[in-house]
Amino acid sequence: MDRVPILVLGDVLLVSIQIDLEDQLALHLQEDLAEKISASSAHGVIIDITALDIVDSFVGRTLATIAAVSKVLDAETVLVGMRPAVAITLVELGLTLRGIRTALNVEHGLRLLRDLRAADEFEPDDEDEVTADDSAASR
Amino acid sequence: MDRVPILVLGDVLLVSIQIDLEDQLALHLQEDLAEKISASSAHGVIIDITALDIVDSFVGRTLATIAAVSKVLDAETVLVGMRPAVAITLVELGLTLRGIRTALNVEHGLRLLRDLRAADEFEPDDEDEVTADDSAASR
Repeated sequence: MDRVPILVLGDVLLVSIQIDLEDQLALHLQEDLAEKISASSAHGVIIDITALDIVDSFVGRTLATIAAVSKVLDAETVLVGMRPAVAITLVELGLTLRGIRTALNVEHGLRLLRDLRAADEFEPDDEDEVTADDSAASR
Repeated sequence: MDRVPILVLGDVLLVSIQIDLEDQLALHLQEDLAEKISASSAHGVIIDITALDIVDSFVGRTLATIAAVSKVLDAETVLVGMRPAVAITLVELGLTLRGIRTALNVEHGLRLLRDLRAADEFEPDDEDEVTADDSAASR
């Protein structure tokens, strides 16, 4: 397989990563996601990593890049389904996944995206501050 | 990887199959799904096969078994994301995926499940007939 499928759930894109993200696959995923966000006007991206036994620095960097690109395209990225052991390893390795929001599972991720969206709509003049507050709260 | 992750979306379970369903993996998926349906009282299962280049008779049988088990546990199964080439090959091979509903993508699948649920609730006395009509309409 050379592509990770991207599922559309209303205005949210859902990606379930089930195999090791090698260089080429990660690159394809970044490109595909950027194109799909732009084509579908999605406002959120949920990346599920339930199936991953390990998140190394390469995967961490890939996820951070995806989140940064999505942000530029006005879509928030939420990482969900992280196994407890993966979280422990991440912290032990000193990888903080800076700039990536996390949630327990897909449902919590969807709710987080909805809340972020609602906050943005209520305070359009104050957008930068709201975003900063939210990301602080989600850490 | 030895398990296909099962994502929970409200009362629907979502499975995105991205790698070849070998014997052991297919067996695990059947067991995991049955357990998860029973644990979460899900009323629907959506199986996404966007990533599959081919659906052979083994995969077809596996999907049919999953649909039959889910049905016994009161959950409908919808197969989504089938590539046009896969559909053509299926028909050419004479595999009709009997007993499995299909929809274009996850969103259509969710809507189909919602409609089926609504029909069931409106006509509880007539459940068998409604189900028969629905499955005829979805083919």
